Amino acid sequence: MTEPDPRYLAELAAQLRVDAVRASAAAGSGHPTSSMSAADLMAVLFAGHLRYDFADPDAPGNDHLIFSKGHASPLLYALYKAAGAISDEELMTFRKRGSRLEGHPTPRLPWVDVATGSLGQGLPVGVGIALAGKRLDRLPYHVWVLCGDSELAEGSVWEAVEQAGHEELAGITAIVDVNRLGQRGPTRHGWDTGAYAARFGAFGWHTIEIDGHDLERIHHALAEARAARRPTAILARTRKGEGVAAIADREGAHGKPLADPDDAVEELGGPRHVSVTVAKPDGAARTRPEARSYQAPAFPVGERVATRSAFGEALAALGAARPDVVVLDGEVADSTRTQNFADAFPERFFECYIAEQQMVAAAVGMQVRGWTPYACTFAAFLTRAYDFIRMAAVSRADVRLVGSHAGVAIGQDGPSQMGLEDIAMLRAVHGSTVLYPCDANQTAALVAAMADRPGIVYLRTTRGDTPVIYGPDEEFPIGGSRVLRRSDEDFATIVAAGVTVHEALAAADELDREGIPVGVVDLYSIKPLDAEVLRNAAISSGNVITVEDHWPEGGLGEAVLSAVSDLGPRVVQLAVRGMPGSATPAEQLADAGIDRASIAGAVRSLRRSA
Amino acid sequence: MTEPDPRYLAELAAQLRVDAVRASAAAGSGHPTSSMSAADLMAVLFAGHLRYDFADPDAPGNDHLIFSKGHASPLLYALYKAAGAISDEELMTFRKRGSRLEGHPTPRLPWVDVATGSLGQGLPVGVGIALAGKRLDRLPYHVWVLCGDSELAEGSVWEAVEQAGHEELAGITAIVDVNRLGQRGPTRHGWDTGAYAARFGAFGWHTIEIDGHDLERIHHALAEARAARRPTAILARTRKGEGVAAIADREGAHGKPLADPDDAVEELGGPRHVSVTVAKPDGAARTRPEARSYQAPAFPVGERVATRSAFGEALAALGAARPDVVVLDGEVADSTRTQNFADAFPERFFECYIAEQQMVAAAVGMQVRGWTPYACTFAAFLTRAYDFIRMAAVSRADVRLVGSHAGVAIGQDGPSQMGLEDIAMLRAVHGSTVLYPCDANQTAALVAAMADRPGIVYLRTTRGDTPVIYGPDEEFPIGGSRVLRRSDEDFATIVAAGVTVHEALAAADELDREGIPVGVVDLYSIKPLDAEVLRNAAISSGNVITVEDHWPEGGLGEAVLSAVSDLGPRVVQLAVRGMPGSATPAEQLADAGIDRASIAGAVRSLRRSA
Repeated sequence: MTEPDPRYLAELAAQLRVDAVRASAAAGSGHPTSSMSAADLMAVLFAGHLRYDFADPDAPGNDHLIFSKGHASPLLYALYKAAGAISDEELMTFRKRGSRLEGHPTPRLPWVDVATGSLGQGLPVGVGIALAGKRLDRLPYHVWVLCGDSELAEGSVWEAVEQAGHEELAGITAIVDVNRLGQRGPTRHGWDTGAYAARFGAFGWHTIEIDGHDLERIHHALAEARAARRPTAILARTRKGEGVAAIADREGAHGKPLADPDDAVEELGGPRHVSVTVAKPDGAARTRPEARSYQAPAFPVGERVATRSAFGEALAALGAARPDVVVLDGEVADSTRTQNFADAFPERFFECYIAEQQMVAAAVGMQVRGWTPYACTFAAFLTRAYDFIRMAAVSRADVRLVGSHAGVAIGQDGPSQMGLEDIAMLRAVHGSTVLYPCDANQTAALVAAMADRPGIVYLRTTRGDTPVIYGPDEEFPIGGSRVLRRSDEDFATIVAAGVTVHEALAAADELDREGIPVGVVDLYSIKPLDAEVLRNAAISSGNVITVEDHWPEGGLGEAVLSAVSDLGPRVVQLAVRGMPGSATPAEQLADAGIDRASIAGAVRSLRRSA
Repeated sequence: MTEPDPRYLAELAAQLRVDAVRASAAAGSGHPTSSMSAADLMAVLFAGHLRYDFADPDAPGNDHLIFSKGHASPLLYALYKAAGAISDEELMTFRKRGSRLEGHPTPRLPWVDVATGSLGQGLPVGVGIALAGKRLDRLPYHVWVLCGDSELAEGSVWEAVEQAGHEELAGITAIVDVNRLGQRGPTRHGWDTGAYAARFGAFGWHTIEIDGHDLERIHHALAEARAARRPTAILARTRKGEGVAAIADREGAHGKPLADPDDAVEELGGPRHVSVTVAKPDGAARTRPEARSYQAPAFPVGERVATRSAFGEALAALGAARPDVVVLDGEVADSTRTQNFADAFPERFFECYIAEQQMVAAAVGMQVRGWTPYACTFAAFLTRAYDFIRMAAVSRADVRLVGSHAGVAIGQDGPSQMGLEDIAMLRAVHGSTVLYPCDANQTAALVAAMADRPGIVYLRTTRGDTPVIYGPDEEFPIGGSRVLRRSDEDFATIVAAGVTVHEALAAADELDREGIPVGVVDLYSIKPLDAEVLRNAAISSGNVITVEDHWPEGGLGEAVLSAVSDLGPRVVQLAVRGMPGSATPAEQLADAGIDRASIAGAVRSLRRSA
């Protein structure tokens, strides 16, 4: 690495500022001042430290650059222009309808790994990529994350810092743009870079405090960071809006174009035509063993097996077949049964401890590198990571989530441990898939199907044992369902999933003995759902009972309503409506009104009122 | 404070262990080993440091004790027994149906402030209580939080530690039970109390490292913590299962009763009858000015005002009327408009910076002390706090949440900033209320109505200006709706809320000119909803168009379906179905198919197919 030419760097940085001002002015919105504070940092990074082939974004040896402060998108796009990746004409489409230069970066641009804009997420995802670099890819690429100072208030940042420190991830550098001004006003620590350095240092990071407008200091800091044996935080003291006196270090200038962009451009020395040549990485190859065929575990019909246990066995079997599968745990592997995978493939198992946001973020980072992650904890605790799940969808990430201990069926542990909102939460994610198996063989089939399903794919498992009702070779396509009971005389159809399938079958048997035939549908795929089967059932019987171990809002029942309501069936939604306490699983199902007796009772009530 | 008698303390601690073993054995489940590690710490706290009147849990001067490691509930209940608050007979109901001694503590017990069991939440809530103590109540009560070591991996803990350090909250002590074993196995830092001390210290806390089984050291540490001028963390090295050799410091003994409880009780010296006298607090009075009547801001019909701006003005007006109202911000007060309140009542405004989990936790803590909190950020970023919101419902907390910048209507900023899942997320919270006003006067009315509504109450606001359509004196009860257009000839009824109300009205006018009369309902209260009005509309017109600036899952449309589907109307759900990019607000509404033209088009399609 040669000493950079300071005059060239200054010119490049000036152009980045000019372009940030111009792009925001053309858009009529955006964050030029947040871009200007970091322009010097990024100019030096691009000119002398980043190794990236813009012509080949998938090159295995490429470094990764994440703008965790995604609102500095004008700077990122100005950098892409300087690197020759986009034209000035495209730069001027910033924030316009149809442009891939969105207000906050998304992977609609091939050089963007993940969407940012919800603060405190870029560093966690970057840690996931660096973890893949060290433990999976074993390649020397470096992960550079540009952070804002405001976002260091997010706890997710400290989950990431803790994981990187503990794993001694030398392959990541956080470049913190300490411009002391947040959106509303001064940040908690202002320009006290020492406050941040103390925090990063306590978590085992190497820290460097610099003037973020001193090009030579930036250069040496970046070199030191790349060479460090530990993760490094560069705390760079900067001025928001640097370069234009009217806005530099001024409150009230966040997130708006400059009042006088032409004057600002002139003050910055006018437009230039500076290009930057980003060094390409050394040729590195991605090597990974061939996949083999999946040998699903087989469970004998009639045995009692918890779907969480079947999941664990299936996941280990999938791990044997698919060397791309990796598993992330929130320190509950014994409960979710990912321990089976951990025992078989410790090198592809990642203990994230009780840090669900970081668990999901690391999964997102690993899929950036082409791995196939399963992130698993209690269904209830996935709520902790909802913002990360939401953003993973914006990132067009392919991530599999598994939530165990769903519903009141867990029994004694009480409501804090019960996933009762997970179906609603995961359905309301763009492009998501929501699966909820009722038996062990169905679970094993779905665990494999998830691996190749794009987007956010969620599997819900049950704590307690349930009977195996399907054979080991049966198929369960995503989007399908199973009609378990049906006759032309059905008075009603019960639509259930997971633990309530068994309650529905028992209720159907009981009603049958009373001379009331009812159908039963196992809706194991809640999103997408099998509208045809549901509509046929609604037409033929006219009465539908949905039964779910979940709050009534946004769950199975409402999903079914969306598919059949125009046919005008009477639909009774059985769901958990009161706040549970502690009780046995059977008592819980009864108290919630979702057990066999409640289902049979609902059918009888409909019959009486018919 | 007198030096405690070590023999007495040892006896008390032994009884706590015995009772934890007995209660878990009787329940057949529970966490005795996690209780036994902390028994000495809590024995000393109760015997010599806690100031609490068990006969008067609402006494203003009472200290607060939060078991952030809620799974140590057997220890907590054993303490209650020793303090005479519950009987041994009740202790033996632990985890049984109907018992208030749930698997994890909830406020069904009058001495429990908040539910715990989702780790990493007790300390954040405790910080909220301590913040109330310092800045609102101005009383010298102390907040004691028993934390596990595993839960320190949660980022939410560090949001709390940062806030407490920054606010110099001397009134809180975290007692960390460093038993080195999590659920699955060893924690990240094992018995390295220095690692934790370094982290707390970097965030400005006073730290004390002790042997957590040394009764005298515990006593001095607790005294030092209470006297400290800063928040204090006591890092106590302990052994999980301490006192019973078969399980002490052993892996695999988490969360299960002892195999041989009788032997264990004998090893612990057998049952005892030790009681503990907890010191009562000094008499302290709660003083607060009288409430005055709310003078809602009035907005002239026909003007254009953003509902977020009306919210800001109304909140400031409410602050003038109600001295119990406090506001918490996630560093976006200028955008959400809580700045109006901050300017008027800085002493009741809490800047939580970009830490949404802590913002919600602090709100929960303040309502524990009888304050009326409004916690406000972008709707999208409330997803960050979903686990805290979920647990706030288990805590029976009364918390008002306000999410601004809802939906694609924000325009250029793109999907990371758009709340598109908030209705689904907040509907799926037990006992919640979901409000979504469409105009400024309606907003002002609902802001006041929220203040006295129990449970989790959510208000969704819009970034852009919308026309004022209601007069300033109109009433908008929670659970109501407004029929804006209706005739006996209506071919269909459009059900809308918020920004889509105005699109619906424009569509209705357009259709009316074409000779297609349609009704329009403003469903400003999405939960609870006005089933009667919706059902009448479904019966009279037979066709319902729901239109919402939200994903289709779990939102307005599905809520309406739940209320009307049995009547068999044809329901068309217009909602956001594609991933948005950047565009103007009007372009976004059109691209999502929820603007006036799309609504009118949907009605025309229905008409053609009718």
